[in-house]
Amino acid sequence: MKIYGDIYSGNCYKLKLICALLEIEHEWIPVDIMRGETREDHFLRLNPVGQIPICVTDEGQTLTESNAILYYLGQDSDLWPTDRLAQTRVLEWQFFEQYSHEPAIAVARFIKIYLGMPENRRHEYETKLKSGYRALDLMERHLDAHDFLVGQNCSIADISLFAYTHVAEEGGFELSSYPALRTWITNIQQLPGFVAMPPASAR
Amino acid sequence: MKIYGDIYSGNCYKLKLICALLEIEHEWIPVDIMRGETREDHFLRLNPVGQIPICVTDEGQTLTESNAILYYLGQDSDLWPTDRLAQTRVLEWQFFEQYSHEPAIAVARFIKIYLGMPENRRHEYETKLKSGYRALDLMERHLDAHDFLVGQNCSIADISLFAYTHVAEEGGFELSSYPALRTWITNIQQLPGFVAMPPASAR
Repeated sequence: MKIYGDIYSGNCYKLKLICALLEIEHEWIPVDIMRGETREDHFLRLNPVGQIPICVTDEGQTLTESNAILYYLGQDSDLWPTDRLAQTRVLEWQFFEQYSHEPAIAVARFIKIYLGMPENRRHEYETKLKSGYRALDLMERHLDAHDFLVGQNCSIADISLFAYTHVAEEGGFELSSYPALRTWITNIQQLPGFVAMPPASAR
Repeated sequence: MKIYGDIYSGNCYKLKLICALLEIEHEWIPVDIMRGETREDHFLRLNPVGQIPICVTDEGQTLTESNAILYYLGQDSDLWPTDRLAQTRVLEWQFFEQYSHEPAIAVARFIKIYLGMPENRRHEYETKLKSGYRALDLMERHLDAHDFLVGQNCSIADISLFAYTHVAEEGGFELSSYPALRTWITNIQQLPGFVAMPPASAR
């Protein structure tokens, strides 16, 4: 199995993390988003949407969408629960991540640390901060009574949400008033096999 | 089972459609987005994200995120395939819908027909048109060789994507150069049990 990804991207890091937790052998093929590699012809032939990560299975199937790939890799493990209601809860969190969380928190971080907060993106940044905090508030309320997002154990929902939440401070979010969120981050970091995402400053 | 939704919202219509196709009994409780009902306290108690649709099961569980609810309602039927790769393809399309399709096509339609295209949203509208056409192009390329998005039959992926695609013209998208897309729309409209979404003009 091959994974094409940029390790500094939270969406790609999700796959790095699940492979580490489940000890899934894979070849990691670095793709540099900042150099525009996902818009080049050779990459668009693999994924016409021009997004990373993608996963190419040993049977030659190209899989896209980080959260769908998490399902593919995790559905036979403890990371995907067995009953329908819990499975639905996992998907709720994953759709929440792609619709309400990632577009705010990842984009705010991108504008701040990769674009260096240009003046013409400042208004957008402020808007993203607001909607990002709404997403973090919601997680905090839930995690206040739960160790993980669904059930008693880590699921692919936690991996999805962990990716950009644990580096939200790089994007200008202040997590000190989110104790439950910080405990949850630690819970994930203490999982056997956990691998960290390299800091953005290492790029 | 109760479904809280606004029938003029594509995300809510997804649930109306799956209930019709699978003959799922339910009580539909109308919620008026335009009147701001999803931001009122009584609704936020049901769903703190303030989004519709939501589904309240007979056991009193509140389910959120239209695409997750489609999984909950459809996973025991032909609308959810049995093999892991096909299941992953369904989720790929659903995450594509929430990340790349709905935020463009639904929002363009909202700005045009519900807000009446105010001048201060025109630039945003033009941006949404561009990204919406990119999403439609991608669907067209795929559907050119397939009757449905995944496999030989309708799946919950088709329901997800149908919702806003079939009313894209209301948002200013021109579908005449998308023959495969139009055939696919007809394929879905001809499914036994199909129910139509009322036209926006009927609101």
